[in-house]
Amino acid sequence: MVLKSFIEVEAKSHFPIQNLPFGVFKPEPSSEARPGVAIGDFVLDLLVVSKAGLFDGPILGNSDCFFQPNLNKFLELGRPAWKEARSSLQNLLSATEPKLRDNVNLRDKALVPMCKVQMALPVAIGDYTDFFCSMHHAKNCGLIFRGPATPINPNWFSLPIAYHGRASSIVVSGTDITRPKGQCHPTENSLPYFGPSRKLDFELEMAAVVGPGNELGKPISVDKAADHIFGLILMNDWSARDIQAWEYVPLGPFLGKSFGTTISPWIVTLDALEPFTCGAPMQDPPPLPYLAENEPKNYDISLEVLVKPSGEEESHTVTRSNFKHLYWTITQQLSHHTINGCNLRPGDILGTGTISGPEPDSLGCLLELTWNGTKSLCLGGATRKFLEDGDEVTLTGYCKVRVL
Amino acid sequence: MVLKSFIEVEAKSHFPIQNLPFGVFKPEPSSEARPGVAIGDFVLDLLVVSKAGLFDGPILGNSDCFFQPNLNKFLELGRPAWKEARSSLQNLLSATEPKLRDNVNLRDKALVPMCKVQMALPVAIGDYTDFFCSMHHAKNCGLIFRGPATPINPNWFSLPIAYHGRASSIVVSGTDITRPKGQCHPTENSLPYFGPSRKLDFELEMAAVVGPGNELGKPISVDKAADHIFGLILMNDWSARDIQAWEYVPLGPFLGKSFGTTISPWIVTLDALEPFTCGAPMQDPPPLPYLAENEPKNYDISLEVLVKPSGEEESHTVTRSNFKHLYWTITQQLSHHTINGCNLRPGDILGTGTISGPEPDSLGCLLELTWNGTKSLCLGGATRKFLEDGDEVTLTGYCKVRVL
Repeated sequence: MVLKSFIEVEAKSHFPIQNLPFGVFKPEPSSEARPGVAIGDFVLDLLVVSKAGLFDGPILGNSDCFFQPNLNKFLELGRPAWKEARSSLQNLLSATEPKLRDNVNLRDKALVPMCKVQMALPVAIGDYTDFFCSMHHAKNCGLIFRGPATPINPNWFSLPIAYHGRASSIVVSGTDITRPKGQCHPTENSLPYFGPSRKLDFELEMAAVVGPGNELGKPISVDKAADHIFGLILMNDWSARDIQAWEYVPLGPFLGKSFGTTISPWIVTLDALEPFTCGAPMQDPPPLPYLAENEPKNYDISLEVLVKPSGEEESHTVTRSNFKHLYWTITQQLSHHTINGCNLRPGDILGTGTISGPEPDSLGCLLELTWNGTKSLCLGGATRKFLEDGDEVTLTGYCKVRVL
Repeated sequence: MVLKSFIEVEAKSHFPIQNLPFGVFKPEPSSEARPGVAIGDFVLDLLVVSKAGLFDGPILGNSDCFFQPNLNKFLELGRPAWKEARSSLQNLLSATEPKLRDNVNLRDKALVPMCKVQMALPVAIGDYTDFFCSMHHAKNCGLIFRGPATPINPNWFSLPIAYHGRASSIVVSGTDITRPKGQCHPTENSLPYFGPSRKLDFELEMAAVVGPGNELGKPISVDKAADHIFGLILMNDWSARDIQAWEYVPLGPFLGKSFGTTISPWIVTLDALEPFTCGAPMQDPPPLPYLAENEPKNYDISLEVLVKPSGEEESHTVTRSNFKHLYWTITQQLSHHTINGCNLRPGDILGTGTISGPEPDSLGCLLELTWNGTKSLCLGGATRKFLEDGDEVTLTGYCKVRVL
């Protein structure tokens, strides 16, 4: 029997009772930020639920983790607490449970129409790491920047390549991004110049949100890694390709990426994603033992990017990709990150890198879609090589239930 | 007349009344961490000073910034507050001021012998950035890793190259560092292997500690940059050269650096360093206008690295360098960091990169000193190519007063 909520949820909604993603919101602009979960067109206020004593399990019954302005304290509690919260909330919201359904006063306080709330960053992010785990993206970038000799560097197949990103400039979906200025260098023989980036790009990514984490000097083994991942978010790693191309040798991307990174307000838990696991790609050469998993797992998550050109009414889908295209799994990413003893803290985020697929319309950024601006993309009446001022970019993801 | 304190300070002390560096400490292991300044062999407890009402200036008189377990709130207040604190404290500690000198009770509470305190991280670090600003270091690394064709990449002379470092693994001086494990790759034709790093190195750096900072999207001009730098710390950016060499193309250093970064507990303020400013190197080509300073300034700070080999009694000086060798100034570094709109927050730190000088004994890391392990360094009876388990590394810095 399919679990149903007493709250009506449209079939096309991203927020059925099976999902219940966690976020942080303000019911009114003047209220304190607090945790919530999305259900249909509502946000369930977890501060209100907690105050009403409706978390009565052994871990959350005595916790103040939902009295906080971010999810860090809840994330620190680990998977047993996350499972307890999910099961309490699925029970509370189910069609057959009267506690909330039949309490008009409580329902009015606890269920806030989503159109009225203001979403905030779900976590205080200590460190943000960005991986580079799509083989198609790595290959295309190599072809564009370094040519056909070795599009993918040999180390790529041996370890999940990553770099540290900038945590301070991570913003929640809906925040305007200012076109960055910087140094660029157009051709071999000309002088570098300064100005607004002419190659502003999006990057379709997802990111793992870290749970308990580890102490400095104590790695997390790959088969324990899933216990340290609370869930996944969508992430747009805005990129200025001209700034990036000039600055990135030899220490990697810096100002070409640090002017803004947008994340979704909702974290979809790994528990909600469990029905949508799928096999991970064969890895050849086989990974070193510390990266070899008992059951390598990926997730079948359809991903799209839509662009609404400035001044137009309609958005156009420019990319249809899938999370399952990632070569390195999120558990390999997390375990590799700690293998040198590096400590992860609750709320840290690990981006996957741009998720490109093998097909021409599954490329996760304009750099690839327009081959570094050498061709144009048609968006209804408009064309684009890179983003123009006033353009709106939307990332979206969903899992499809297989109807048997 | 030279300012003197009623506290006796030995001539060779790093902590005369002219310095007064800020840190965070616990008077006893069980007490709360609180801000302090170093004076001679004592730490002056700023929580006690603040509670006693001895900060009576217009900014600090009503502030709780010294009631915090870190300096972030004080740093956020900006240079006027920093100058007020320095002048209040120099007055309070001076030989001619009776308020503290003649109050035995207060003195007992406020002045804690340095040998008894436990030092903590002075700031909560949101983001840590590491620059690459010594030309000698850049050139030597280029020669070692890429050969003599273009030891320094052309972009290096055009902008201060940097990468994002890992904030979570920054620890205060005295904390043990665990030798990292990781993937390495010895030669072109062999397979990558996993194991403890065989090329563990130190890096002699200093770092700027950020004050007020800026909003996302609003750069800080180079001539305003000094107002956002509270002071300088010593930093050892521990590096695993074998892990770094295998992983760093194309996205820069990651696990080769993120297993631990040690900073000094004391932040020496720019105000204390002002008498030791010196000219900055001529920059050729001249910097783009956004990096051109009215008065380019460097600091004449003597720096040394000492290594005490495991099992030996004595430390040996392996490096004598100077902060003034940096090609890009700290104000250029900070302004460049924000030129794309990237926001800096109070407590962020900006490392200079390894500070190597032109002489063979002024190289700031073992990679350079032993030319990637191709020659040995003599340390009394012991020899080293890289660090061995149990070795102790000490970084020290000082400014010399010119006696007229």
